[in-house]
Amino acid sequence: MTQLKRDRQFRPLPVPSVEIAGLFGDRQDAICNSTAETLLNRCVEAGMVQAIDMNEPSPGIVIPIQPWGGTTQMFWDSDLGKSIETVAYSLYRRPNPQLEARVDAIIDLYEKLQDEDGYLNAWFQRVQPDRRWTNLRDHHELYCGGHLIEGAVAYFQATGKRKLLDIMCRYTDYLITVFGHGEGQLRGYCGHEEIELALVKLARVTGEKKYLDLCKFFIDERGTEPHFFDQEAIRDGRDPADFIQKTYEYGQAHLPVREQRQVVGHAVRAMYLYSGMADIATEYKDDTLTSALETLWDDLTTKQMYVTGGIGPAASNEGFTDYYDLPNESAYAETCASVGLVFWANRMLGRGPNRRYGDIMEQALYNGAMAGLSLDGKTFTYENPLESAGKHHRWTWHHCPCCPPNIARLLASIGSYMYAVADDEIAVHLYGESKASFEMDGARIELAQKTRYPWDGAIRFDISTGQPARFALSLRIPEWASGASIRVNGEALDLTRITVEGYARIEREWKTGDHVDLDIPLIPRALWANPLVRQDAGRVALMRGPLVYCAEAVDNGEGLNALELEGDVAQAKTTEIAELRGAVALELPATREEANWGDVLYRTSPPEKRKATARFVPYPFWDNRAPGEMLVWMRAGKLNHE
Amino acid sequence: MTQLKRDRQFRPLPVPSVEIAGLFGDRQDAICNSTAETLLNRCVEAGMVQAIDMNEPSPGIVIPIQPWGGTTQMFWDSDLGKSIETVAYSLYRRPNPQLEARVDAIIDLYEKLQDEDGYLNAWFQRVQPDRRWTNLRDHHELYCGGHLIEGAVAYFQATGKRKLLDIMCRYTDYLITVFGHGEGQLRGYCGHEEIELALVKLARVTGEKKYLDLCKFFIDERGTEPHFFDQEAIRDGRDPADFIQKTYEYGQAHLPVREQRQVVGHAVRAMYLYSGMADIATEYKDDTLTSALETLWDDLTTKQMYVTGGIGPAASNEGFTDYYDLPNESAYAETCASVGLVFWANRMLGRGPNRRYGDIMEQALYNGAMAGLSLDGKTFTYENPLESAGKHHRWTWHHCPCCPPNIARLLASIGSYMYAVADDEIAVHLYGESKASFEMDGARIELAQKTRYPWDGAIRFDISTGQPARFALSLRIPEWASGASIRVNGEALDLTRITVEGYARIEREWKTGDHVDLDIPLIPRALWANPLVRQDAGRVALMRGPLVYCAEAVDNGEGLNALELEGDVAQAKTTEIAELRGAVALELPATREEANWGDVLYRTSPPEKRKATARFVPYPFWDNRAPGEMLVWMRAGKLNHE
Repeated sequence: MTQLKRDRQFRPLPVPSVEIAGLFGDRQDAICNSTAETLLNRCVEAGMVQAIDMNEPSPGIVIPIQPWGGTTQMFWDSDLGKSIETVAYSLYRRPNPQLEARVDAIIDLYEKLQDEDGYLNAWFQRVQPDRRWTNLRDHHELYCGGHLIEGAVAYFQATGKRKLLDIMCRYTDYLITVFGHGEGQLRGYCGHEEIELALVKLARVTGEKKYLDLCKFFIDERGTEPHFFDQEAIRDGRDPADFIQKTYEYGQAHLPVREQRQVVGHAVRAMYLYSGMADIATEYKDDTLTSALETLWDDLTTKQMYVTGGIGPAASNEGFTDYYDLPNESAYAETCASVGLVFWANRMLGRGPNRRYGDIMEQALYNGAMAGLSLDGKTFTYENPLESAGKHHRWTWHHCPCCPPNIARLLASIGSYMYAVADDEIAVHLYGESKASFEMDGARIELAQKTRYPWDGAIRFDISTGQPARFALSLRIPEWASGASIRVNGEALDLTRITVEGYARIEREWKTGDHVDLDIPLIPRALWANPLVRQDAGRVALMRGPLVYCAEAVDNGEGLNALELEGDVAQAKTTEIAELRGAVALELPATREEANWGDVLYRTSPPEKRKATARFVPYPFWDNRAPGEMLVWMRAGKLNHE
Repeated sequence: MTQLKRDRQFRPLPVPSVEIAGLFGDRQDAICNSTAETLLNRCVEAGMVQAIDMNEPSPGIVIPIQPWGGTTQMFWDSDLGKSIETVAYSLYRRPNPQLEARVDAIIDLYEKLQDEDGYLNAWFQRVQPDRRWTNLRDHHELYCGGHLIEGAVAYFQATGKRKLLDIMCRYTDYLITVFGHGEGQLRGYCGHEEIELALVKLARVTGEKKYLDLCKFFIDERGTEPHFFDQEAIRDGRDPADFIQKTYEYGQAHLPVREQRQVVGHAVRAMYLYSGMADIATEYKDDTLTSALETLWDDLTTKQMYVTGGIGPAASNEGFTDYYDLPNESAYAETCASVGLVFWANRMLGRGPNRRYGDIMEQALYNGAMAGLSLDGKTFTYENPLESAGKHHRWTWHHCPCCPPNIARLLASIGSYMYAVADDEIAVHLYGESKASFEMDGARIELAQKTRYPWDGAIRFDISTGQPARFALSLRIPEWASGASIRVNGEALDLTRITVEGYARIEREWKTGDHVDLDIPLIPRALWANPLVRQDAGRVALMRGPLVYCAEAVDNGEGLNALELEGDVAQAKTTEIAELRGAVALELPATREEANWGDVLYRTSPPEKRKATARFVPYPFWDNRAPGEMLVWMRAGKLNHE
């Protein structure tokens, strides 16, 4: 891979190089104890394993046609791929021979399923064998391959077993013969992006530049004219205009990617595309891609993102609508989309620490993404509304089960999102009790992070090294963290002098016993939305550290919109809730409008009010107790503010 | 019909007995000038006339299967029926031989289409002849018959031509052989209620009690066990549980009607059922029905009705959801449902004047229903949201074109909703420039109502009579009309002494030259919603008289949720808007949150505010000028109130 390096290039630490405890450790325990096995069980129950078993009859079409024009069954390979990836990461934390054996058996089935030419796709081999490569726009054919590649890479790294990796290399070598500019080759790409970022992982683990080149081909071809989706439709005897989503914006194929300026279409597809683009920008030092990505980043985060880091407000296209259109109760804000935003932000950090990306990565991770997994690791969300009348509930399975393995694989590999290393620098993007191991300046370094973050803002780093080593330790100072301070071996540093792009960069020779104390005051704060967000007018969202807070009926009774906040948010009382793993709750004075209203629906006098106390819990932990109403954007009432 | 009379029984004045001017006259002119012909044209364009023409080939299935399990084509007869009804009423106001000839031609086609046994239904005769009476639950078979009956009655009354009436009498006589408790008869009823109220109209015009009896049969059978919909499904080889709506609440068939306590399911179906029930309660003096209806009335109007009289918030079932669930932007609130509420309210007045029904009839008529027709009579709404981001627009046609002829037939026959007579009393339910003719105490009476209502609250009644006549004149005093006063021949009456159920009852001997001056102060007022309506928390709706007001972008710029009201609503400035036929607008001081917010989506300080003036126009007139945002429930801000 040396030929791919550039001067300053940050790569995530490998998953096994980071030991995790604290809140993330608790989430990983839930995955090891429950989620990983749950995923495999539910794949089996859905028929996914039977679907790839050549000793079983073809399952045929077992699920009715869905509104998005395919069947969920068409992307079963992707669910298996993500489940394998989750299991792989879980094995680092907790070896589990039974689970590993089950994955081995699935891999054996894929080995038998693979065609001689390398093709592999359960749907197009077992259900519609005559439809291979006839409709890349709608049928998730390469998307499935991408997820199997990601699973293969993770499983190889976790177990050292090459079988699935070899299968997917053969598959990708075959793709290289199918796609390209040559005679008889397809100049196409998948309607649902995903294989792009997977190919980068495959290139990095194998050192094969050809896989990067295929990724770059897919990215460069996307949206160019004559349009591939038009041409394949005509070849296939279909009217190019005859599809539900109507415009190619749905799959970000309406313009060449370097000309795209607005984040549009299906949210998950967009995030996966931009992730792949960011990887290619880094690997090829392609500033034209970086420039497009920076514009798209601003477009998303300043006009189209919920305060939770949820994105894609509409169910109709599982994606974006108009600027500032962020309805709370009907928010789609798919778990996968926030997971995808974490992916993208993480890859934007490949060119160096920058809190513009790090802050949003943390916000989306803790809120929009982490909300997708119950505390016990057994139930899931798909939509992540910011207001609920009490009818949203976590479910055990979904006809489109993309989200459970997606949030699970993210949390199970969280160490590689926390730390990234360049030649002479380690960046800490996320805080949490953990221990990172890496080499720097020829020395083996252990960096122990001791903290109760996100519940407490005191963070201690202890360095151990066999020999003194010179490198930079870069620590993200979140934009919201006013009053943050750093001491090295007890001596205070002037943050204004050492902060670059929002990261405090401490460059020195480190030796065992050195320690850094970072203090991030976790002062509760109220956020107002841009007045153009009509749904949040007159309302505030509460945050403390990276966590968005919400009110739940279980703490406040029903009728959360009858509450108006009062007092000073910074002075909110904090308590710990045992039922929520010791999560910190906030309490604020409020008034509540009385519902003793008389027997009419409308009247000419306002409701009476009484004093109340409103209690808030972290948004990602909602719906883990008694079901009921939930609300993020609270009526601001007579809130004090500076 | 005398055998059906009871002592105190109010019947609407026939449509031709009321001359209409003022606002309602303007709406009727639009219908005569545009809507009536538009409806026929669009029925032709949709293929509805071809569909009933035996000289044309069967149209087959021309519209794809819709989510509600049928095709819109299945209810084309109903659209023709309502269009014929609209044309009929329009002929009173403006004779139109061309239009009449076109209806005659359609009636000739129906004559040829009718089976020898009397059966008539374009879908089941021309497209699925083997499916007659196999699925009453889903296929609108009797619903279509009902609308043709209503059209037949209206056309007979307007033109004296009996052909369609005779056709529909033969049809109904045939129904009497099909439905009943006898051997081989069906104990069924239609999934979509409508024929019930139509049969009452048919009975009243023909004097035939057998049609009332059939109506009563349908009402009495509904929801009884063993359940007809279960049994017909089994007979038809279908699984009774296999239908989209899942429960019989959708068509109010989950319980016998006298046991129903909650308004549920499809909103239009519910309104039509309750209308039929109210008619039967009146005709049979059936207090068990009246008692159920009163409970249902309270259930609807105190827990499930928008301030516009819109009902049925959800698109998913075109109907009701939970109590107090009244989302504004996604409100379905179908035009037909508000029209249906006017029908029901009107029939609740059959047992005597009571403003509990009259006030709501007026509110639903002026707002939720009248919004459905553009000022020029050429475009329509289906949904009637109370908030729009600017993407709702009136349309010229709809795949399910039920609403245009429904609001048109209501407005074209509005005279019969304004006045109702009993033996010795005339009740004025609605105010508006008009002249009513009727007989009372052996005398021919003319009651001229002179007013600019709803723009002005001064209403003058002039009586002309060939000879003095003793009767009561009952005038509705709306609940909101504080300060209302009445003078007879200049002499003030004590309203508290003569008001019964919200109607001022003036009983005396009337002679030519007598006049009554009713003054209803139209003081603008702010309404708060019950705090249980979470969507309206901290907001007010403005009303003046019966009209709900809304803000539109064309008057206020975009960003209507950035406006907070100030000052005293009762002191709102009134102006007339020429573009909106002289409608009275309201102006109030307000503050507007500035959108100069910086390049972030969320921040820790609230928006700055500047002074502004907010302008409001009557809700039914919205989207008649430049398209853009619209908002009914405004942020209350620092509104003064008593």
